[in-house]
This record gives sequence, C-alpha cells and structure tokens, in this order.
Amino acid sequence: MTKKVILDCDPGHDDAISIILAASNISDLKIEAITTVAGNVEVEKNTQNTLKVCDMIGLTDVPVAQGVERPLVKEREIAEEIHGDTGLDGPDLPEIPTKQAIDQHGVDLIIEKVLNAGDDITLVPTGPLTNIALAMIKEPKIIPKIKEIVLMGGGTFGNWTPAAEFNIYVDAEAANVVFNSGVPISMFALDVTHQAIATDEIIEQLSNIDNATAHFVVELLVFFKKTYKEVFGFSGPPIHDACTVAYLLDPSIFKCQHVRVDVETKGEFSYGMTVVDKLKTTGKDPNVHFAYELNFDKFWDLMTKALQSYQTQPN
Amino acid sequence: MTKKVILDCDPGHDDAISIILAASNISDLKIEAITTVAGNVEVEKNTQNTLKVCDMIGLTDVPVAQGVERPLVKEREIAEEIHGDTGLDGPDLPEIPTKQAIDQHGVDLIIEKVLNAGDDITLVPTGPLTNIALAMIKEPKIIPKIKEIVLMGGGTFGNWTPAAEFNIYVDAEAANVVFNSGVPISMFALDVTHQAIATDEIIEQLSNIDNATAHFVVELLVFFKKTYKEVFGFSGPPIHDACTVAYLLDPSIFKCQHVRVDVETKGEFSYGMTVVDKLKTTGKDPNVHFAYELNFDKFWDLMTKALQSYQTQPN
Amino acid sequence: MTKKVILDCDPGHDDAISIILAASNISDLKIEAITTVAGNVEVEKNTQNTLKVCDMIGLTDVPVAQGVERPLVKEREIAEEIHGDTGLDGPDLPEIPTKQAIDQHGVDLIIEKVLNAGDDITLVPTGPLTNIALAMIKEPKIIPKIKEIVLMGGGTFGNWTPAAEFNIYVDAEAANVVFNSGVPISMFALDVTHQAIATDEIIEQLSNIDNATAHFVVELLVFFKKTYKEVFGFSGPPIHDACTVAYLLDPSIFKCQHVRVDVETKGEFSYGMTVVDKLKTTGKDPNVHFAYELNFDKFWDLMTKALQSYQTQPN
Amino acid sequence: MTKKVILDCDPGHDDAISIILAASNISDLKIEAITTVAGNVEVEKNTQNTLKVCDMIGLTDVPVAQGVERPLVKEREIAEEIHGDTGLDGPDLPEIPTKQAIDQHGVDLIIEKVLNAGDDITLVPTGPLTNIALAMIKEPKIIPKIKEIVLMGGGTFGNWTPAAEFNIYVDAEAANVVFNSGVPISMFALDVTHQAIATDEIIEQLSNIDNATAHFVVELLVFFKKTYKEVFGFSGPPIHDACTVAYLLDPSIFKCQHVRVDVETKGEFSYGMTVVDKLKTTGKDPNVHFAYELNFDKFWDLMTKALQSYQTQPN
Repeated sequence: MTKKVILDCDPGHDDAISIILAASNISDLKIEAITTVAGNVEVEKNTQNTLKVCDMIGLTDVPVAQGVERPLVKEREIAEEIHGDTGLDGPDLPEIPTKQAIDQHGVDLIIEKVLNAGDDITLVPTGPLTNIALAMIKEPKIIPKIKEIVLMGGGTFGNWTPAAEFNIYVDAEAANVVFNSGVPISMFALDVTHQAIATDEIIEQLSNIDNATAHFVVELLVFFKKTYKEVFGFSGPPIHDACTVAYLLDPSIFKCQHVRVDVETKGEFSYGMTVVDKLKTTGKDPNVHFAYELNFDKFWDLMTKALQSYQTQPN
Repeated sequence: MTKKVILDCDPGHDDAISIILAASNISDLKIEAITTVAGNVEVEKNTQNTLKVCDMIGLTDVPVAQGVERPLVKEREIAEEIHGDTGLDGPDLPEIPTKQAIDQHGVDLIIEKVLNAGDDITLVPTGPLTNIALAMIKEPKIIPKIKEIVLMGGGTFGNWTPAAEFNIYVDAEAANVVFNSGVPISMFALDVTHQAIATDEIIEQLSNIDNATAHFVVELLVFFKKTYKEVFGFSGPPIHDACTVAYLLDPSIFKCQHVRVDVETKGEFSYGMTVVDKLKTTGKDPNVHFAYELNFDKFWDLMTKALQSYQTQPN
Repeated sequence: MTKKVILDCDPGHDDAISIILAASNISDLKIEAITTVAGNVEVEKNTQNTLKVCDMIGLTDVPVAQGVERPLVKEREIAEEIHGDTGLDGPDLPEIPTKQAIDQHGVDLIIEKVLNAGDDITLVPTGPLTNIALAMIKEPKIIPKIKEIVLMGGGTFGNWTPAAEFNIYVDAEAANVVFNSGVPISMFALDVTHQAIATDEIIEQLSNIDNATAHFVVELLVFFKKTYKEVFGFSGPPIHDACTVAYLLDPSIFKCQHVRVDVETKGEFSYGMTVVDKLKTTGKDPNVHFAYELNFDKFWDLMTKALQSYQTQPN
Repeated sequence: MTKKVILDCDPGHDDAISIILAASNISDLKIEAITTVAGNVEVEKNTQNTLKVCDMIGLTDVPVAQGVERPLVKEREIAEEIHGDTGLDGPDLPEIPTKQAIDQHGVDLIIEKVLNAGDDITLVPTGPLTNIALAMIKEPKIIPKIKEIVLMGGGTFGNWTPAAEFNIYVDAEAANVVFNSGVPISMFALDVTHQAIATDEIIEQLSNIDNATAHFVVELLVFFKKTYKEVFGFSGPPIHDACTVAYLLDPSIFKCQHVRVDVETKGEFSYGMTVVDKLKTTGKDPNVHFAYELNFDKFWDLMTKALQSYQTQPN
C-alpha cells in the first residue's frame, strides 16, 4: 500500500539524499508535499535547494511550500559550517531553479493536507520541528489525524552542544510541542544516524552508479565528508535524514525501543536535549519509538538500489 | 486622525467593556478587526461572546476572526472562577449571536491586515499574547510594520500566581516573543489596572445612563464585582482591559515610564512574571512604556461619556 | 524576659546601626554572639568593621566570630558602591580594632550556641543567609532548637536586580535552605525597610544627641544618604537591618502578614527573588511573618531613645 | 611514593570494596581518614557500615568521621532498593561495630587534614559530593591545597534519572561547587564503571580466594548482583566506586580524555546531569580527566591480587 508522506526539511546534504530516496523508483511513498523550514541555513536558501533537488530528479508534480523562517521562541541559529554557505555546497547547481514554490505557507499546506486526508498522512521532519509545532498550535484539529511522525533529531548525546543535537537545539520549544502532542513518533537520533556512515568504500560503490542523480549524491557526500572530518573528526559523513525514509521503506533495517522522551527547555547546560528514558526510571508512559541500531548493509543496499533506479538522464 | 486598531481579546467582562469603549461614538479608533484567543475561557466561547457584544452594540461591519485555542508551548489554563462558565456571566444574553465570525483564522487576519496597511495599525491585545506571537512567528515581515502594541498584561506583582498575571502566565513563551520583537509596546499591567476600579459610586453613576449598552455594562460590572470580591477580596472590580483603549483615546489619563521588561519562562516560582526594571539595574535598553499611574476621574469621565454616546436602542 | 540573640551580619552601615540598637541600654536583648558573613564587602572587612563598632560602643564581652567568605553555590558578589571601599565608609575609624575575633568559625559558634541553649535563641541575620544555611546543613539538629529567625532580606521587588534584593540574591540557595527549614521566620524585606528612611529631619534630630555613639551613627547616615541618593535616587537612606532589632524590642512598630514565601533559584531574570504569596494563590502553608508596614514615628522614637541611652564617652 | 588519600564514602557495596582495595597489602595508599556522607542510605548507617568494614579488615588506626546527613540545598534521597535496608545487605555482619567513629565532624576532619598536609592529599569521594563541597565552602583555603579529587559519579547517561547518575543527582549543587573549584579532577562515571562488571566468571574466580575478606567481598557481590539484575536488568553488578582506587593504584587500567564537564542544576528533566563536552563544542577549558575505557583484565587482576593479599583471619 502506498504511504502518503509530507517531507518537512532544510536541505542540507542529508535532507537532499532523503528526498532522493523517497522519490526513487523503488519507493512506495507518495510525496504529498515538501515543506521547508529554517535550519541548516535560512529558509529561503532551503527552499531554493529543495527546488533544485526536485529539478535534478524530475520531481515536477510535488508542491513545495516554504515554511517558517525562525524558531518559536528562541533566536535563530544556523549551521553553515556543516553545509556550506548555500546549505548545499559541493555539487555544481544552477543559480536559479526551474521549479517554483507554491504561494501557500508551508504550515498552512501541512494543515490543509492533513485535514483533507483520511488519517493516513505521515509527517517526515528532518529539520527543526518549527513547522510541525506551528501547524499543531494553529490548528490542533490536525493532531488526531496525523498517522505518524517519523523524524530525524535528538539523541542521548549531542552534536551542537554536549547535550543537544542541532535540529532539536534550534527549536526545543517546538520539539516539546511535538513530543507531547500524543501523535505516534518514530525518532531517528544521532544514536542511530551515526551508524549510517558513508564510508570510503560506500562512496566508491555509489560512484559506480552511472546516472545524474547518483553522481549528484556522490558530490554531496564528498563535500559532506570533508566538513564532518574537519568539524567532528569523523571518517565518513553520517546520512542522518535518510534514516527516516529508509525506515518507511524498510522498517527491518532498524531496531527500536518504545521509550519516554522529554525535551529539556529549562537547562543551563542541556537546553535542547532529548532525555531518553532507556532504563525506564521515570515511570512515564512511552511516547517514542527510538531507533538504536541500524543494519549497515541493508541500509546501503537500499540506498544503492534507490540510486540505481534513477535512469540515466540526458545532460 | 483616526487610529487603526485590531482588538485581540478573550471576552471576558473587561474585554467586553474595552470593545464597547473602542466602538463608542466618542472614539476616533477605526476597529479593523477583532480576533479572539484562548484565555479567560476557551476560544470558541470567547468568539461567541465577542459576537454577542458586537450584536449588542450594533458593530456589524467589523470582521471577527477566531484565533488560536491553545498556548504556544504550555498546557492550556482558563479562568472560569473569575468570568463564570460562559466567560461573560451576568447579563442575560441570547444563546446564539446573530453576527458570525469570518472563516479566516485570526492569526492570518492579523497578518493580512498588517501587511496590507501602511505601517499604521496598532495591535491591542487584552488576552494572552498567543495570536500576536504566532503571527510574528508565521510571518516575521509584519514585525517592522506594526505601529505599536498596546497591551493589558503582567505587573510587578501577580494575580494568578504570586509573581504572574493571568494573561502572561497563560502563555509566557508568547509574551517573550512579543516583548523581544522590537515593536514599540505600551503595557497596562496590574500596577495600573488595579487603579481602574469600578467603585460602588462609579457603578451607581453608570446606572443612571439610560441606554441598552450602558445597562449591559452595569450588568457586567455587577457580576465582575462579585467574583473579584470573593476571589481576591477587592471592594470593586478593576476594568483591566479598558485601560488599553482609554490610553489610545486619551494618553493623558496615564503616567508611563520607559523601562526594560523581560518575561520569565524558566523560573520555578516565577514563570510568567514580567520583570520590570524600574530602578534600571540591568543596564538594558528599555523596550516598554510601562503605565504606573491612572487618573481615576479622567478615566471614568471618559468611560461615562463613551457610554452616554450610545443611543437608546429600542428593545 | 531577656531574649537571647545571635546577630549574623556584614556591616555595612545599617548593620552597624542594628548592632548599636541591640546593644543599647534600652534593649532587653542578650547578644550571645556576633557572626560575620561575606556580603556587603568581603568577610574579613565585615569582621573588622564589627570589631570596630564593638570598640566604639564598649561591647567587650560579646564574642565575634568570622563566618563564611563565599556563597554556597554561586560566585561571590559584593556591594562596594553602596557601602564604600571599607564597607563602612564615612566615620573616621581606627585602622585596627582593639577587640579581636575569637578563633572559632562563625558557623560552628552558631551551632554550639544553639545546641547548648534551651530552645530560646533567636537568630538575627542581616546579611546573606550563608552562615545560617551552612549551620543547618552541617548540623541539622539545630533546626528544631532555633526559636525564631528574624531577618532582613528579600521583598516583592528588588534593589540589586529588578526582582531580587541584595542579601537574597547573593546566596539564593542559602535562602532556599533557610526558608524551607521549618523554623519560624519574621522577614523584614524592602517593602518595609524602605519605610525606615532617615529623612533630613530625622538626621537633624539625631544630631542633637550628644554622645559619641550618636555622633557615629549620624556620620554613618550622612555617608549612607549620599550613596542612596546617587545610586537609587532616594531622598534619605533606609535603615534596613535595624528593622529586625526594632521588631524584637517592640513588635508593635510593625504590621505583619503570615504568608508563604519561596525563593527563586532557577529563573533567568528572577534569580534570588523572594516570591511572596500575599493573595494566597499557591494554596501552600505560610512559612513567614512578612512585615509590610512600619510605624515611622515609633521606629524613630525607639532609635532616638536607644542612642540617648548611650552615655557620653570620654574621647 | 606513598599517596595520601581521604576516602569519602557512603558504603554501599561498591564503596566497601573500594575501601578493601585501598587498604589491601598491595596498595601504596596511606588512608589518612574515612569520612561518611548521606547517600546510598542515611549517614548514620553509612558510618556504621564503614566501621564494620574496618573491623572486618582490621583497619584499626584510620580515623572514621561522620559527615553531613543531607544535601546542600535539595531534599534528601536514598537508594535502598539498590543496597538494601542496611545499605550493606548481603553479608552477615555484627549489629554493632567494635571500632568507633571519632567525635569530629567529617567536614572538619577533611579541612584539618588538608590544611595540615603538604599539598599532597588526594580526596576520593565515592558518594554524593556534599562533604567535599561543604569543606570548600566553610574553608576555601583548602582548595589550592588539595592535590587531586578522584571521584565516582556522573556520566554521559544516567542511572537514577534518564540523564543523571545517583551520586550527582542527590546533590547537584555540591557537585557544581566541586567541578568549578579549580581542583584537578579525575572522574569515574557510569561510562567506565559499567565496564567494571563482576561477571559470573569473576565472582567464581574471587570465590576461590580463601580468606575472610575475600569471602566478604563475594557475599557483597552476590547481593549486589541480585539488585542490579532486578532493577536494571544487568547480568553482573558494576563495581563503580572501586574504579577510583584502582586508578590510584594503577592509572594504566584506564583511558582518559581531558574535557569540560558542567553540572546541570536548572533543568526540568536533566537535573544532576554531568554535561561532558567530548566533542569540544563549548570552547571551554577542560576541568576533568574523564575515564572512558577500562581494561577489564587488568582491573580484575588488580582486584584479585588485592583480595589475595589479605591473610586468612581466624574466625
């Protein structure tokens, strides 16, 4: 059965790969819309990047709508040191995309799509959770109609501060709204996305796929590898965001635990931390399926097949 | 010169009186819209109450739009013990209003009105600041175009907790967004609204005005007097919200100080407090014109004239 | 009946006057000990100042013990702009006092005195509450044996930050320990100490008392007046700390309310605030007798008589 | 060269083993004193347990002094579900120890020992840090004279809450004082102590050592194994506290990283967390040598040799 999804993102290298995986010919997902949010870079850049990725892979009929440009309460913070000045540095992309964003606000598109669907839309946020929270605040009626939220964010450790991962740190208040909404959540945190490393062997293997989309992905990976090495000392870049789509395509890639997750918004040193109750010390009911293990071979097999499914396009 | 205003409210006895003052024949305000917000009671009730007040005073051509039904981040909290079960207990009102709310979301109406006006719209929030904050988050372009925000809320002391006033306490995160937005703010806090007491003499004086609107206001005051006596031990009810409109009609009623105000969102015992730097100990630039003194006679003269300006309506 | 007190202080102009009032010939207090604490200035200076005051008034047989030199958890903060470099600027005092502090730590002296007394010792802290808290932490057995704590600190408004008074701000964690200890507390906060103003008339009146102690007090007041005018714009200096002793000598000078007071230690803008539940909105049991009104004439009559009771000393 | 240590503890099964390791005949540590603190159980029980352990191993000449019975600021919390009602359930111990605690307060003994030594005393806290913090607050002169603090506590994950380890959670304010004191700290957190597991093989191996002390340790391990299995689902109990002494006897057992560690005292869900900046995202100077890897074989070899070094005692 086809699964309807809305991708809510801030491309971003791994967001781009996530879109490409979702739109590939092996995917049974129906992308209802793509919405953009301030995150890795400013929302306008994220929208442009999304449109360029759509151009690249021929995703002409999916509406792209720009969402919010700032967090709910906090000052805006961006991550240019990771994704470069454009937010998608690396590949040689046209300055101006052919595809255009629709005129509707991303938050309103989410609300409209969810209200009009039959309780079967899954939201897939791979950036800060501002759009999703804002949609829930503006129109709480959507909350019981969202099938599931499959998100990238958080972790039992951080990458932006010692305790907090970037997506959650950027708007912990929004995350708080989402995690307390009662909607079923599957969470792909640093704990598992750091297992989705594009090693040199993987990059070489993908380089052998001969189509424009695969070449594009390899260019993204080569740039992403460089910043992850410089900033974090990683040997290969983790393809965080694509874990969400991979899970939707093949849940057996991941092992999950049903746990309570709370978002810290008051802490002096731990603002934006996702507090994951793995030992069940809080006595609170679980609200999150927390992925903790990724099958490396299955993950990259899926990604490889997805890239192979793109036909060679005439340049 | 006519001042354009949007009244953002949760009627509520004093909200109703505030609308009546703004719509009176002595007022030079042009009410562009009335938006409602969850606050004293649920947003649906607040909308119904607004419509009934409009019916009562013949305010047929002002659009009323319902806004958000919950705070940004916090759980919802209401104040039925003050305003009664309907939110406007006391007068005998029809069950269903004649006037209807427009279909647009209150937040979108605020955004549209501000974007389309010539930098000359003043926002007058007399409930929690959720609508205003949400409009700023969803469309930050409105921020430099808002002329002023004239609000009722906060104080150097509280009424809902020892440190926090109800409107700010209900959504301190929203208040935080508004107070840090850079928009000029005039703030009518408990410090001054507790000087706007409808004493027995005042209520008697207003009882002598012979038109339906004045009678309605007296009925509101009689009920409001009862709850303020029971809950807070006050001798007469403070007409908090009407201070905002009174200020717009005649600023000379109030003495103000230009000060820094911050909103506490982290405190254990002081969540929702407006921290007013009257002694200038913080060294921060002022962001609020803080009204600290009300001229009692001028205030009630204005109110009396406003009620007298309503013609006797046929029953 | 004689009341046994331990004065715990950081002189400090008003601390000095407080000691002088307690030691005067009209006082029925038995000063068991004076302990010093870091506060207005460093603890060593506060100890020296205490000894000099004792020399001045011939308080030879009361042990003075130096207490802690830093807050429990926070970084140390001092108030030199108010009390001058020595902590007692103004009068011409000898560089080195004749009287010496005893060798015992102030905290241990408090513990020893309370443990050995018959439940009849009242603690009178007029500086940060670090010594008192530390004594309670080190030896919790003292807690049920303390008769009462009569303290200067806190308020429904602040003087060091918009929300916090200096003594509590300097060590809010210590205040938290004391306010939650269960010991009966009478609290003389800014709300009432700002009524204990030494006006020009009062200063002139005291100037007419012809003995060395009265002259000394006048010199203190003249300096204190200057800094309160410069820093806070006050017309006369408030004799904060002496309110505690005045209450012990004549409770009828003050009106008090029995209320719940909590100390904010988590707030972003309100750290160190004493949250006073005057409207009883918290539903918590009272823990503090909160003085809110001072009889100005009675206060200064007492002070005048106290100063007159000092005999003229040969210079 | 002999290293002088003060063991500050709350025995506690692993505390007891830590003492036994420190006092063994293969140890080059000179135990200057043992102080007790409220932690696993009440301080009186911890003192009794310490004395019984001393009796058991013939540690007659080391002074044992009881320290504080409550945290600095927080309410007291204990861990009876882990250590049993006595705090040292399992072995059959005499009701009343032969050895007696000295009359001095533990905090004063720490101050005296450090002040009188030649900058060569290492503190080894294996319970909450209240005694150490209180000593630093009462007498800051000890701070530059402490050679090192080698402590068990904290972690990048928790065991008492999802974010906090028991020792730090019980008194995070005290931990804050210690971690910000400037004294060199080596920290043995859950990250490494969970590698110090007494597996069934290890317990069997230790069972073969034929002396009363070894038998006692085995009895402790058998009980501790049971609770760790029931409460946390561990296959064998981690000997947390003994890591500190093992490090002092042979640092090569551990790999450490020099990092910044801050203690969260404000968080809603993360109070008591030690925030460990492993990726150096804070830019702050390191203050802690954080052990992250334990050589399992070396650790248990050391422990085995230590137990073997106890002579068989006549029963």
